[in-house]
This record gives sequence, structure tokens and C-alpha cells, in this order.
Amino acid sequence: MASWPDQPSTDYGFLNAALAEADADAFVAVGDRFDDDMRYLTRFSGPDRDYAFVFVGDTATLCAPALFEEQANREFSGDVVRMENVGDPAGERARAVLDDALDGTGTVLVPQGIPHDTALYLERGGYELQSTSAVTDARAVKTEEELDCLRRVQRATARGMARAEEILAEASAEGGELLWKGAPLSTERLRRQVNATLASYGVRDAGNTVIGAGPSCADLHFTGTDDIAPGETVLLDISPRGPHGYYGDLTRTFVVDGDGGWERRAYVAVEAAQTAAFDELESGAGVAASAVHREAAAEIAAYGFSVGEEPGFTHGTGHGVGVSLHEAPSLRADEPLEAGMVVTVEPGVYDSSQGGVRIEDLVVVTEDGYEVLAAYPTGIVPQKR
Amino acid sequence: MASWPDQPSTDYGFLNAALAEADADAFVAVGDRFDDDMRYLTRFSGPDRDYAFVFVGDTATLCAPALFEEQANREFSGDVVRMENVGDPAGERARAVLDDALDGTGTVLVPQGIPHDTALYLERGGYELQSTSAVTDARAVKTEEELDCLRRVQRATARGMARAEEILAEASAEGGELLWKGAPLSTERLRRQVNATLASYGVRDAGNTVIGAGPSCADLHFTGTDDIAPGETVLLDISPRGPHGYYGDLTRTFVVDGDGGWERRAYVAVEAAQTAAFDELESGAGVAASAVHREAAAEIAAYGFSVGEEPGFTHGTGHGVGVSLHEAPSLRADEPLEAGMVVTVEPGVYDSSQGGVRIEDLVVVTEDGYEVLAAYPTGIVPQKR
Repeated sequence: MASWPDQPSTDYGFLNAALAEADADAFVAVGDRFDDDMRYLTRFSGPDRDYAFVFVGDTATLCAPALFEEQANREFSGDVVRMENVGDPAGERARAVLDDALDGTGTVLVPQGIPHDTALYLERGGYELQSTSAVTDARAVKTEEELDCLRRVQRATARGMARAEEILAEASAEGGELLWKGAPLSTERLRRQVNATLASYGVRDAGNTVIGAGPSCADLHFTGTDDIAPGETVLLDISPRGPHGYYGDLTRTFVVDGDGGWERRAYVAVEAAQTAAFDELESGAGVAASAVHREAAAEIAAYGFSVGEEPGFTHGTGHGVGVSLHEAPSLRADEPLEAGMVVTVEPGVYDSSQGGVRIEDLVVVTEDGYEVLAAYPTGIVPQKR
Repeated sequence: MASWPDQPSTDYGFLNAALAEADADAFVAVGDRFDDDMRYLTRFSGPDRDYAFVFVGDTATLCAPALFEEQANREFSGDVVRMENVGDPAGERARAVLDDALDGTGTVLVPQGIPHDTALYLERGGYELQSTSAVTDARAVKTEEELDCLRRVQRATARGMARAEEILAEASAEGGELLWKGAPLSTERLRRQVNATLASYGVRDAGNTVIGAGPSCADLHFTGTDDIAPGETVLLDISPRGPHGYYGDLTRTFVVDGDGGWERRAYVAVEAAQTAAFDELESGAGVAASAVHREAAAEIAAYGFSVGEEPGFTHGTGHGVGVSLHEAPSLRADEPLEAGMVVTVEPGVYDSSQGGVRIEDLVVVTEDGYEVLAAYPTGIVPQKR
């Protein structure tokens, strides 16, 4: 059982810079374990109720519910103060930490989606709030430690994909049905096998194992049960989460016993679009994010598919991945990509009457190009890997 | 492969009652897929970015990002309106829905933790906000449909526990190590087996498979890697999430090759405490939640362990479970339990120098007693089930 890289650390230099730029005195965030800004700021895998992070005078403090104090001390590198009772408002506790340093006056930077009750606690305590995108911006550029986590999760993701591909390679078409081990193969049956494989590699499916068959491939987030028929596109989008909170993201499309019709044309177009996107990324840091999407879309159009509507390429070419499955940057944005940004490259073509084809890989932008995290083969006919 | 019950529906009668009681005009909530109030209100398994729920004039509306429109229509029973762009603020879209019905004036009920930017959008649109606990209160009492989901998830949870127990029964003590299939058994290795089993039954571990060994049992949320030694308490707390968002919650403690010392005393005390709690629940709806905790704690104390501090019984006896793993009611509250409330009953005793023992089952309170969801045997010596 290979071990995981250490938990990455968070360098709060970006908060000092944001405070200096805004001439502000402190930063406060409140959320629960499902708030990915909080995960990034604290590395605390935390409770399913609100806790608070306070950064003031170059000191980071975590206000943790008493029952989670041991876990907070284990995971968080700064000071931990406890909230005695489960129901205590985290915003009230955060205000007390601010009061120790600022005495009820000053400007506090907060994420724009901070809970409203927290905002009111701080404002009533005499602080002026100002929203900041500093955390979102910092998260978009990964450190080496973060890249190690992302590579590791993506390798486990590839193991899940290999399991799905193996099952599809073993499946046989009989009387209009696709059978595996003597029983009809459904999207749900395939999903359970993929998710069990992910679990055995120490990552969790996080509810993100999207598997479509034929028409349901056009539904970008299909997690239901459809029997898989021979000749249908089977689209697998696997995005598990690793123990430090980082996601993988990998999509492949297969057809068992296909007739080489629509899905072959779509596959060729999508492969060409991904290659065009990679070509654009070859210049590395500085390339405009939107140029990557534009090149992919142009290629899809060159193969006679629509862009921006169904049937055709209905979504963007990619998004950032980190402690959120979707985070900055978007490949629709006009900003230049920076070294250390991790993005998906995932062109796709969908037609509800035919099916859907998408290929997705995860790459990190480097100074002079890009690196694919855990490369995985392409090909519409499933193989045993 | 057994199929799942249908997705439960949500009856908005409680919102009408809350609006009437507060003399308010509408209810608005905003959150992402990790916001369990949103899951309960909409049944939308949703995007990892904000979406909005608006209830006004007896009409429920979901404002969904365009890329998730198909999924929203599939899962949500009310009206779906789309937000064109990924970055559009959900609060702004919610205000537009309100404006159609209320024309910029009225009182809007919101959960107290609504995102601050949403609150500002609504207030600047002319609406007065008032916080409500109506959703929290409604969630605490389960419908028959919800109970079916909870029973089903708890049965899958029991399969995960049976797998762990089987592995521990197969493990052997050799030279101070606990070996399974020829290699040392660690908490992480055991966790992967449990999580793979959960996945094969169609539920996901949700990052909640807590397994402690000896000292790490006293850390209530230990998810790290420890080798398991013969004679140590092995505490497994398994809380997976099913496809409709409902959680299971089951804890057992085992010792392989124990010497019958501290852990036997602790086990007897904890079993007696759980029995005392069940005895209190036998009167059914109307019993004070805190009485259940009081009875369990008294029994722990009668066996010579402390209550409220380590070494001893350091937490409460139980909490509600639904679309959140921890929700109302708490067994520390003085309010009477109602029929349909689902709570854990989980006394435990911890000593960092010895280990920890906890037994936890999930029960639903009925008019005249209680029902254990998916009963699972107890016993400190692991058995093949």
C-alpha cells in the first residue's frame, strides 16, 4: 500500500499581501468541512458545523468545536482555540479573537460568501467588512506539495478508469444486451465497481462518478441507473477526492461492439480538439486561458459539430482543480495562465439522440509548457490495462 | 443488486406555516451541493457552486446554473429557472424571482447562515430579512420515505461493519503484530476494505470511516494510519451517505487477542449505558431527549468511569441523522423527542493511555417506543457474520 504525500502546508504570505493592499487589519473566514476555502486555509478536515479561521497580526487562529480540538491540533499549524459548545456561533468566537488583537476597531477582509450571521457579529463588534478574492486567487496556483497530492489522486483515478475499461472489455453483446459475468451491465453496476476500486486505492468517489450510456451521456451529471446497450457510448467521468482534500478528474468514452457511426466521428473530433488544446498549452505560462478553449472549439467546428449548443460541444474546455473539483481558472477567461495552475482539458460532443463523447485529462501549466498528471491512454474500444 | 427507494419528496407545508407565523412573504435559501438544507429543500444533488431556492406564493423555484439544468429538472419537483453563466450570483437570480411575485417589497425568511452577499442582494432589492429555523426543525422529523432511505443506508453500513469484523476475525497475532493475509493490518488498510465494501453496496464512505486503534480511539475523528496491535481496542465508526443524501451511522469496538483488562470493563459499562438509553426510549415520543443522555451517563458513572472528561465518557449520547450526519435533535436538549426523529445512541469510554470503546446504533423514535434501524450484533471478540 503506497503511502500518501504529507499534508501540504499553506503559506499565509498572500493574506499579508491582501491586507497590505487593502490597508486592512485582519482576515476572517467561517465555514464547515464542506467549505473548500476553509480546507485550504486550515488543512483541517473538520466538523460538519461552522468553525472559524482568523488571521491577524501575522498569527493564524482556528476556532474549533471542543469535540474536534484533537483533530484541529493534529491538522492545523497555527493556534487552536476551542468553542465550548457545539451550537456556539463561530462568528462570535472569531470576534473574540479579533478583539484580543484589535479591540473592536478596524477593517476585516472576508470572502464574499461568508455566512450572514458571521458578518453581523463582526459588524456589530465594530469592524468594517470588505470582501476579498485573495483566497480564490491563491488557490489557483499550486505549490509542489499540492502538485504531489494532485498527481497521486490522479493516479488512483486512473486505476478506477482501468477497472471500468477492463469490465467493458470483458462484457459481451448478447441479444441486444451487454452482459458482464452473466448479468446485464448497468451504469450503476459499473459505478459500484469503479468506486470500490477507488476506495481500495485510498481515495473516495465523492459522489462524482458520472457514468452515462447513450442518451444519458448528454446529461453532463448523470448518476442514475441505465442498462448499457451494445453500440452505445459509455462516458465515464471519474473525480475522486484524496485524503488531503485534492481531487482527480479523468474522462474517457468507450463503445462496446460499435458500428463505427456517429460515435467514431465524434471521437475523432474530440481527440483532435484535445490535441489542439494541448498544442496551445505548449507555450506554457502566459498563454491566454480562453485561447485554449478557442482552439479546441475551432477544431470541433472543423469536424462539422456545433459549438455552444446541442447537438455539439455544449460546455467549456476546462476548469481548475484543487481542493475544489471546480475552481479558478476557467478556460473561458481572458487572463493568462500561470505556472502551477492545474486545469482539465475536456472537449466533448453530445447529441441526445446518439450519445456523448468526452475525453478529459488533468494538466499543470509550467513555465515552458505543460505536464499531464497521470497520463492514461485513449481509444474508443475498451482494453484490459 | 437491490434497488434503492425512490428519492423522497419534500412537503413545503412547513414553509407555509413558517411564513404565516412570521407574517412573511417568501423564503429564500442559497448554497451549493454541500449545503444540506438545500439538498432537503430541493432534492437537487447539485453543483459545487451556489444555486438558489425561492418559495413564494406557494410556488417553489430552483435557480440552477445552465450546465446543471437537466439534472435540476430531473431531481427537483418545482419550477427550474436557469442562471446563464457559472459565475452569476445566485442571490441576484433569487431576487429576480422574488421581484416577479413581490415587486421589491416584503419580508423574506432566510436561514441564519445564508451567504452574506445573498443577504445584501436581497436587502438592496428592498426586502427585509428575518432568520428562521424552520428548515432545521422540519428536517428533524422524518417521513416514511425518508425512513426507508435511512434504513437502506444503515443496512449497507452494516455490510461495511461485517467486512471489518470478518477481517479482524481472520487476523492473527504474531510476534506483537496483527497480521492479515500475511501483512500488518493498519487502520488505513482496514478502512480501504470497509470503504470498498460500502461502494459495492452503492453508498459512499463520505470521508467518515473513522477507525482508531488503541490510543487513537480516544481521538473521536481519527482517519490516519496506525498499525493495529493485538490486544488493542479497534473502534470503527462508519457513516456512509446513500444516493439520496441520507447517512448511516454505526459504531462497534473489537479487540483481537485481548487480555480481558480495561477494555472488558469499558465494554460492559458502554453496553449497559446503551441498554439504559434504550430503556428510556421505550416510552417513545414525549420522552425528554436529555433524559436519554442522563440515563446513559449515570450507567457509565455507576461502572466507575468519569462523565464529561477523559478518561471517561467525553461526548453526548447521540444526535439526529438525516441528510446531515449531525442534525437536530441533540440528546443533550431538554425538548421532548417526537415520533419520526432519528437519533444515534452511542455511549463511549476513552482513556488515551488504554484505548476507547463505543457502541452506536441508529434508532427512530415511534409513538410508543423506538425501532433500531438495521440491527447489528454486539460483542468485543470479532466474528465472521
